[in-house]
Order: sequence, then structure tokens, then C-alpha cells
Amino acid sequence: MIVRNLNDARMTDRLVKADGWDSTRLVLAEDGMGFSFHITRIAPGSSHVFHYKHHFESVYCVSGQGSIEDLATGQVHPIRPGVIYALDQHDKHRLSAETELVMACCFNPPVTGQEVHREDGSYAPVPEHA
Amino acid sequence: MIVRNLNDARMTDRLVKADGWDSTRLVLAEDGMGFSFHITRIAPGSSHVFHYKHHFESVYCVSGQGSIEDLATGQVHPIRPGVIYALDQHDKHRLSAETELVMACCFNPPVTGQEVHREDGSYAPVPEHA
Repeated sequence: MIVRNLNDARMTDRLVKADGWDSTRLVLAEDGMGFSFHITRIAPGSSHVFHYKHHFESVYCVSGQGSIEDLATGQVHPIRPGVIYALDQHDKHRLSAETELVMACCFNPPVTGQEVHREDGSYAPVPEHA
Repeated sequence: MIVRNLNDARMTDRLVKADGWDSTRLVLAEDGMGFSFHITRIAPGSSHVFHYKHHFESVYCVSGQGSIEDLATGQVHPIRPGVIYALDQHDKHRLSAETELVMACCFNPPVTGQEVHREDGSYAPVPEHA
């Protein structure tokens, strides 16, 4: 059994910071669970385009208010506590925060912790960092 | 892109009720994500033994206070918001709620929604309901 704490993890390299968001990787590929689990914060007033071409991701809103735009269709969905979106089509999207968003994210395949967001908003497929 | 809402899902058969807990399955096997994602509530003052012999599960505490006991070692870990446990050894455990616990749970393999908890605290392996 693995037990971890978000506040402790934020003081380690599990916390990855980017412009307008950060993400704390509480479960990673090395844990052998077959998925990774992250708590991600999106700064109020910020907007981000992500496109996980090589991963499935679900994102559950723990707190905050914002929206997600499906960039294939232009459809915008409000993000509120209790809303989840699942990128089952590797959907390119824009996530916008009105207030700080705190999101619980699951990735399959699991993130290793070594990924960086590429220019196109994706993470590389696993073999590129294996 | 799939978008769902916890409050809406609780009015459907995504909400599974048991004695002292309930669980709302926001992402299920049929969604093709390779994991399932549930919001589980544990009633205050209740205690439950679970043993997912055939699944990996991670559980993140969104709100509430309680504890988890590793039944192999007797070790007890406090559960507070921001604490996650990952049952990487299919650990048999007792989850106890002092106040209502709200937990964000990921399962691999994904739950189909048809499982029932068996006498031994497990879900059946996937082939038994395939």
C-alpha cells in the first residue's frame, strides 16, 4: 500500500510547474497501477490548450469555476465542482479558469513524470521516453 | 469528449448504494479510457473492509476525516483531504470514516458497473462478468 499526501508531494519534484498551471503527480507509472493520478491547479484568468494525442485523460473538478472548449466542435462546457470530462477521443481542448481550478486527473498510459508539454500541447508517446 | 456531472449521475444507475457507503461511477469500462473513476462517499462513523484482489485502486480524499488500516500489517494511516492511497499490492484494508469521507477513486481494470462486492470484500475479476 502506498500512502502519499498532496502537501508533502508539492515540496518534491512531483510538483511540475508551468505558465499558469501546476500539477502534482501523486501516482506515477513507476507505481505499477496502470494509470497516473495528478492534482492540477489552473491559475485564475488563465487559458490553456492541451492535446494528449497519446494518452487518455479524465479530469474531475474538485473546486473552482471555468470552462472547457472542444476545439474540434467549438462546444463549450462549464466546469464546476462535480463536473468531469474524459478525453476519450484524445480531444484537443482549451481549458479556461475563471477562479482557480483544482482538478483530479487520471492518465492512461500513466505519466512517468519525465514528460514535457510539446509545442502541439501533447505529451510524447511512452516509447519516446522509455 | 465525454462531459458528466456528479449531481446528474447520482440520479441514475451510476449511483451504487451499499450499507454505509455509496459510489457514483463517472467513468466506466464502456467509456474506453482503460480505467474507471468513481466518487465514493463513506458515511460518518462507518467502517468497511475491502479487498480488490483483481483490481488496482487509488483513492484520493477530497473531503472528510478518517483512517485506513492495512490489514496485513495493522498499520493505520490518517485520511485527510489531500491524502491518497494506492492499493498496489491489492491490499486488504479497513476504511473508517470519522466524518463523511468523499473520495475520488480510480480502478484498473475499469469497473463495468455490474460488479457487486463479494463476501470477501472483492469484486470478481473481469472475465466473470464478460
